[in-house]
Amino acid sequence: MLIRLGYDIQFETAGEVPIVTLLNVHPSRKQDLREPDELRTDPAVKIENYQDTFGNHACRLVAPPGKIRLQNSTLIEDSGRPDLEDPAAREIPIDRLPPDVLPYLMNSRYCEVDLLSNTASELFWNAPRGWQRVRAVCDWVHSKVTFGYEFSNPTRTALGVYTERVGVCRDFQHLAITFCRALNIPARYATGYLGDIGVVLPPSPMDFSAWFEVYLEDRWWTFDARHNMRRIGRVLMATGRDATDCAITTSFGRAKLINFQVTSDEVQG
Amino acid sequence: MLIRLGYDIQFETAGEVPIVTLLNVHPSRKQDLREPDELRTDPAVKIENYQDTFGNHACRLVAPPGKIRLQNSTLIEDSGRPDLEDPAAREIPIDRLPPDVLPYLMNSRYCEVDLLSNTASELFWNAPRGWQRVRAVCDWVHSKVTFGYEFSNPTRTALGVYTERVGVCRDFQHLAITFCRALNIPARYATGYLGDIGVVLPPSPMDFSAWFEVYLEDRWWTFDARHNMRRIGRVLMATGRDATDCAITTSFGRAKLINFQVTSDEVQG
Amino acid sequence: MLIRLGYDIQFETAGEVPIVTLLNVHPSRKQDLREPDELRTDPAVKIENYQDTFGNHACRLVAPPGKIRLQNSTLIEDSGRPDLEDPAAREIPIDRLPPDVLPYLMNSRYCEVDLLSNTASELFWNAPRGWQRVRAVCDWVHSKVTFGYEFSNPTRTALGVYTERVGVCRDFQHLAITFCRALNIPARYATGYLGDIGVVLPPSPMDFSAWFEVYLEDRWWTFDARHNMRRIGRVLMATGRDATDCAITTSFGRAKLINFQVTSDEVQG
Amino acid sequence: MLIRLGYDIQFETAGEVPIVTLLNVHPSRKQDLREPDELRTDPAVKIENYQDTFGNHACRLVAPPGKIRLQNSTLIEDSGRPDLEDPAAREIPIDRLPPDVLPYLMNSRYCEVDLLSNTASELFWNAPRGWQRVRAVCDWVHSKVTFGYEFSNPTRTALGVYTERVGVCRDFQHLAITFCRALNIPARYATGYLGDIGVVLPPSPMDFSAWFEVYLEDRWWTFDARHNMRRIGRVLMATGRDATDCAITTSFGRAKLINFQVTSDEVQG
Repeated sequence: MLIRLGYDIQFETAGEVPIVTLLNVHPSRKQDLREPDELRTDPAVKIENYQDTFGNHACRLVAPPGKIRLQNSTLIEDSGRPDLEDPAAREIPIDRLPPDVLPYLMNSRYCEVDLLSNTASELFWNAPRGWQRVRAVCDWVHSKVTFGYEFSNPTRTALGVYTERVGVCRDFQHLAITFCRALNIPARYATGYLGDIGVVLPPSPMDFSAWFEVYLEDRWWTFDARHNMRRIGRVLMATGRDATDCAITTSFGRAKLINFQVTSDEVQG
Repeated sequence: MLIRLGYDIQFETAGEVPIVTLLNVHPSRKQDLREPDELRTDPAVKIENYQDTFGNHACRLVAPPGKIRLQNSTLIEDSGRPDLEDPAAREIPIDRLPPDVLPYLMNSRYCEVDLLSNTASELFWNAPRGWQRVRAVCDWVHSKVTFGYEFSNPTRTALGVYTERVGVCRDFQHLAITFCRALNIPARYATGYLGDIGVVLPPSPMDFSAWFEVYLEDRWWTFDARHNMRRIGRVLMATGRDATDCAITTSFGRAKLINFQVTSDEVQG
Repeated sequence: MLIRLGYDIQFETAGEVPIVTLLNVHPSRKQDLREPDELRTDPAVKIENYQDTFGNHACRLVAPPGKIRLQNSTLIEDSGRPDLEDPAAREIPIDRLPPDVLPYLMNSRYCEVDLLSNTASELFWNAPRGWQRVRAVCDWVHSKVTFGYEFSNPTRTALGVYTERVGVCRDFQHLAITFCRALNIPARYATGYLGDIGVVLPPSPMDFSAWFEVYLEDRWWTFDARHNMRRIGRVLMATGRDATDCAITTSFGRAKLINFQVTSDEVQG
Repeated sequence: MLIRLGYDIQFETAGEVPIVTLLNVHPSRKQDLREPDELRTDPAVKIENYQDTFGNHACRLVAPPGKIRLQNSTLIEDSGRPDLEDPAAREIPIDRLPPDVLPYLMNSRYCEVDLLSNTASELFWNAPRGWQRVRAVCDWVHSKVTFGYEFSNPTRTALGVYTERVGVCRDFQHLAITFCRALNIPARYATGYLGDIGVVLPPSPMDFSAWFEVYLEDRWWTFDARHNMRRIGRVLMATGRDATDCAITTSFGRAKLINFQVTSDEVQG
């Protein structure tokens, strides 16, 4: 299956504003690309490509005063299969987890593991361990939190989601991640493309999407407390502790977003 | 100058509890060690040594049910000079910072840069840039926050320090770090040994200490909003985004601390 | 000057839901009414009228399952003059304030005086005391906080407004109230009608409005950190510690708001 | 049974500081007093006695610069019976509650009903209604929260107690009050004397105590989520929405507490 990916984003700034982007496909998906995946800007500026500390493909640039457009269109091959699942996947004892997985058990800005640790135990301790426990977490979050774009709040943390019970996709994932970590299951935030491929969903303005990954058995698995269903056509861009580490663009200074379009469509090959 | 370092820590647990420690001297100080620096436990358990994602020397072990003692004593050579200073050190524009420094500009669990960004601008925008601005941050935090062990609260964040104006050493550093990041100055948390070497201080129970580092010019520099003075004999153990990443011990399960002693004394060579 | 006031509000509930309303004109304005001011419902239900502990005219009813409409239209005479001002009005020492004013110096749900006390001192201690200090508070809040309906968040407190710097009218007042209380100036929340009478404002969906009152000299005075200008045609409905005490409707159970219209128009007499 | 009550409190202030006290026995207990109950100060200052908006006996005074001592000793007759109980007491529907009870269903500074509403439903919806439901709330809070003077934190709210699971007596009551209100059971904070009368408790420094009251059937009943047992010899001083309204002393300016002693002892008549 082929998916056309792309974005067209425009900022307006008063002065020079450094911007870091995570707009490229994740290194783990590079081999599936059928066209170049390269950030282009108008006006053209110097772009520094590097791998960030979480293993994502990052770009750094300085937006000149005025307007700048960031765009790209690329083509990727996808298995066309839904998110992998293995209901038998086990939790790994902490002393046998790879060391680089351990940070995903800890507190982060939007995931206050310390504050929700008792709640997680009370809600999920009786759930079967492993894959089923992560499913129990997703089911709970999905059923208890109400989705709405009007509930978007960039400062809302997992505790805020737990208390307010509303949010956008990132909020669902933050709460689920926090519960998993509190249960000693490594969990990390993920962002990427997710079109309406393979499902019938009410039409909505296409945006990048957030989901999360948990480490079970010997690898990371995709979960999504927002949709709470296996989906086709996710294309990973970035992973990190939480939304802080996976922001599509981070501006170090005021940058007004004046256009934002994302494309993720199945293409007949 | 020679400093004898050591610790003697005891936990009691009901069941097996995995523990991660950052009890070793930081890799950047290994060459100064005059005796081995090795975590020993009683009862002896398997200890896995590794470098964590922040570059610290970590150990992982599983405490058996009952009591476990973690201890060591080592000897390190120190310059005997106070913390380096360079009042002329400049802030580096974000587009010229080394990429691995960029995460230290971002939000973390105890450092809500987003929530204190405007306050930082209002308080420090008029301060001279570079070293002097960091000094202004430290002076403000040092003068506005009241130190007291009775104010210790492991869930207090930088915003909590800003609103409550009380805390222990980690709280002072969290607030200063958050202000620096909000001003686009990379800042990270540091923990290590800091005895009463070279200063006359009221005797207090020796504990590990927290300070912070900022990136100016071409390197990380030591600052300390708690003591707000240059000190002799700091021995770095760990750095990270905030206290989450630098906890001396992290237990994944209930572990009751029943003894805790730290040594950091100048030794006549 | 005559102002036609009215509202037309509709809820939908699954079961019986008790509702308390503050939809009547404040007792202090009863003598200005030129038509009856009485809550009517469809279907008709028993309505209990009473004065609440803050001196407001409250109604209590039980919405039956299904839809219920709350409406009224009335006519009130207004001075047609802008909010009273007295730049010479003085702060009253706490020991000489009327005792029933003292609660308006204290913490409340959305006004954490304790948490913003130091900030208030740092920002406003140098301002001239009395009326000018309240003006300084309003100017600060008005200039630092960005208004937007999309920023509406019913759980945001004064501290949230201070850190996020966005909000709707209630948020502006909560922050200003909190600063005033921290400065030992009694301040209370007010809600009522405020049309576009006497000013040229961009057309916006009419809603009830929030402002606040401070106690200076020997009485309560109207201030408005949202508009930060003297306005004509405010009609007070309720005062209280904060938005908790002044909610137009409080439902004790789920009640879905399906229609909401407010009228406040000058009428040619 | 006769109980000797008393306090001896000393403050030190730099300048004149207005202080409001709630150091007298509650008006509802005046008829049980066998000696005068009058606040005395040294140096003697003018004391204004009044009933506050919650019905408590308050005093207002201005502490002169320097030290001031507040003290009294009085004698009260007590039934000698434990807190009243009526396991059959029913919850009253909101539309039949006395209007002056309604405020005790709402949010207050330390009781964020809005934020814990869903949690309360999830935890207690299946409990039998009325007295048993309040008991279920107290049992939960008592068993889940760890008491410790070292956990005292004047800014901790009910949500903080829920997330941190530690606290002093006021914290236990705040969480229980919040849960009750979320379940539509009116609940208010209470403070007063509570000696070790009638129970064998580990000796502890005597302090004023906090408990709470709920409205069931046709009256307020005493509950205590901290001790979670019926006690003898409570002497009520003040009730209010939460600790804000019931502070034994509220200083409007810096006042350093330099002595604090409370007496509550059974006296052989």
